[in-house]
Amino acid sequence: MAGEVLDGVTSDPVRLGWMAGAPPLPEKRILGARADHMRFPMIRWSYSNMRSFCPTVRVAANGDGTPFPRALRSDLGGVRFTPLGADSETTVEDSLLSAFTDGILVLHRGEVVYERWFGVTGPETRHIAFSVTKSFVGTLVQMLVGEGRIDLAVPVTSVIPELDGSGFGSATIGQVLHMTSALDFSEEYGNPNSGIGAYSAALGLTPRPASYTGPHNLWDYLTTVPGAGTHGEQFVYRTPNTDVLAWIITRVTGQPFAEVLSERLWQPLGMLGDADLIVDEIGSPFAGGGLNLRLEDLARFGEALRLGGLGVIPASDVERIRQGGEPERFNKQGYPLLGGWSYGSQWWHAHDNHGCFSARGIHGQTLWIDPVAEMVVARFASHPTAANGANDPHSLPAWRALAEALMA
Amino acid sequence: MAGEVLDGVTSDPVRLGWMAGAPPLPEKRILGARADHMRFPMIRWSYSNMRSFCPTVRVAANGDGTPFPRALRSDLGGVRFTPLGADSETTVEDSLLSAFTDGILVLHRGEVVYERWFGVTGPETRHIAFSVTKSFVGTLVQMLVGEGRIDLAVPVTSVIPELDGSGFGSATIGQVLHMTSALDFSEEYGNPNSGIGAYSAALGLTPRPASYTGPHNLWDYLTTVPGAGTHGEQFVYRTPNTDVLAWIITRVTGQPFAEVLSERLWQPLGMLGDADLIVDEIGSPFAGGGLNLRLEDLARFGEALRLGGLGVIPASDVERIRQGGEPERFNKQGYPLLGGWSYGSQWWHAHDNHGCFSARGIHGQTLWIDPVAEMVVARFASHPTAANGANDPHSLPAWRALAEALMA
Repeated sequence: MAGEVLDGVTSDPVRLGWMAGAPPLPEKRILGARADHMRFPMIRWSYSNMRSFCPTVRVAANGDGTPFPRALRSDLGGVRFTPLGADSETTVEDSLLSAFTDGILVLHRGEVVYERWFGVTGPETRHIAFSVTKSFVGTLVQMLVGEGRIDLAVPVTSVIPELDGSGFGSATIGQVLHMTSALDFSEEYGNPNSGIGAYSAALGLTPRPASYTGPHNLWDYLTTVPGAGTHGEQFVYRTPNTDVLAWIITRVTGQPFAEVLSERLWQPLGMLGDADLIVDEIGSPFAGGGLNLRLEDLARFGEALRLGGLGVIPASDVERIRQGGEPERFNKQGYPLLGGWSYGSQWWHAHDNHGCFSARGIHGQTLWIDPVAEMVVARFASHPTAANGANDPHSLPAWRALAEALMA
Repeated sequence: MAGEVLDGVTSDPVRLGWMAGAPPLPEKRILGARADHMRFPMIRWSYSNMRSFCPTVRVAANGDGTPFPRALRSDLGGVRFTPLGADSETTVEDSLLSAFTDGILVLHRGEVVYERWFGVTGPETRHIAFSVTKSFVGTLVQMLVGEGRIDLAVPVTSVIPELDGSGFGSATIGQVLHMTSALDFSEEYGNPNSGIGAYSAALGLTPRPASYTGPHNLWDYLTTVPGAGTHGEQFVYRTPNTDVLAWIITRVTGQPFAEVLSERLWQPLGMLGDADLIVDEIGSPFAGGGLNLRLEDLARFGEALRLGGLGVIPASDVERIRQGGEPERFNKQGYPLLGGWSYGSQWWHAHDNHGCFSARGIHGQTLWIDPVAEMVVARFASHPTAANGANDPHSLPAWRALAEALMA
């Protein structure tokens, strides 16, 4: 296959035979020891099977969840739109392949109107959500703020004294929540010398080089992140902020993060299944991106946010989340396709005329909430490119076109 | 704690503070990289948390299970008996500590009459079952025999040609099922040069030495096990037999082992929760001992066997299982406390006047079925000694005393 560029069809993991057979042929094995599970096209299989590569803990559901009713509409796959920067139209259905989609669910007024599965991914699959995880963390933070147990105005060190001396030491919890902390950390995927490379090595998601002498868990790592600049001036997307939040949640509640997530969201929202949360070698949560869950449970989280929290997340907390961040601080980041957006409470806010907001994870993980269209889109994907700039030209207009079709 | 011998009370993992805090103190961390999770007293915590150390796959329950009714009897903890070889009596309650019990459930006529939890183990915990796993495998084999899909009389190589040339090559599937295959393999725990040491290295349950050049998965390992002697002459307990069975199940059904276990037992029996199955680096099941499950689901499996299979396991298959093996072939193994017993279909058979049979795993994992007393005992433990000879002097008479108390 040297030189062949695989697309959404030809990279299908069933078609390629990854891990098929007993045992799989040597050339069809995806080995964690070689970090295969983090490389395309193997990710088309591994992102649906992360617990077989990583240590995980259970995020327990109640066992009393009921699926959303199905009211499938055969017209939605054919909805047409023009991708950003393109000359000609495409369809929602075709755009799924462009995004290397593993599964998609569209809810309209609480009913599933569109549902598609690809490759090895199905309704019971726990697919990695990557940074979509952050929006669960941010929501928990706002719930604890609402209860007066977290104060966004105080320094991080008032809860986590261990972070004194790190770049987080002089930031407030609010600055960490909204990612306006000023750190010497680059979120450059694929570069082992970048901040995210050092983060990943500490986490241990892929094998560490034999010469590695850095931290062996996330919390030790966080104490080493240097500061750079002045907190609060601009939004810069940096994953370790979220791990600081999870550390704060754990310290404030006195409970493991997975237990907080289970008791405060998974059980009361009636999630259909347990989730798998990746942990580091001392059991600290990979809060920046380690949640593996059923797609319908992701949609359920979105539907809860759309409907003001359903009594599980207090409405006033949802309101604070939906206020978003400050677009002027966001624009400095220079996302070409996200002009006018903001990042707040670990959610992405479009500030468009539908009041859309979103949870986003690398390789195409998406939760898109359109309150005006009463629509929630949940999508898992395994796009070869980590940054969502690669699929946004298709995805963002697709969600808008779906919204308009549902409102027609 | 140097020199201090920890008992069932003083080794309590909550008391010792293992993995407590955010983060745990360095001296309270249980690190897989150091193989801490397989060493006493850390096992009192780790055996209830194996998925945070090992790659696992899900064995899916249906989500429609209902707990057994509770009819707890306050007198059962005080039931008295004399441990084998002892001069004086003890009580069931005290014997739980002697066995380093993590949890115990006793069913009588399908009701829970006795239930105790210790340390970090509770009703939702998925505790490692070790070789109790084998009895699930043996049951699946007998179900496939009943369907005519496995023939115990044919050579292993008729299903797994890859095993030609190994010690299994000339054995029948029946000899592997009843562990009368003749192999050059020693089940000597704690000795890295023993057969089980090589098996563990291939499995990767603990880190391999840097100099390791052996197989990197169980199925490759199985092809390297040499023969020694004549098949069928005597029972010798050797774990790799079970992994051959799982390989056969996988090949015959064309399904991953975890899926077979889910579809044929977990879902139809109405198990309360998903189980976690440890896998090696190519996803092959650790069928010899890698099942982690809720204690009540273990009891449910026992109750199904007691009641003739409940229509899930055909009654004729249960009957073949309950026939056991041949005591004369078993006695050559020389278990001092198990005279007259046999091993058949991956179950232990007491051949006593109650027709008791049992699933047994190292460090005290037990499923004990007493058909005459209409009793099932399920116990998880983390005894410092692997071999069950260490807890049998207490456990075996305790089960008998409980049976008599329930029949009184």
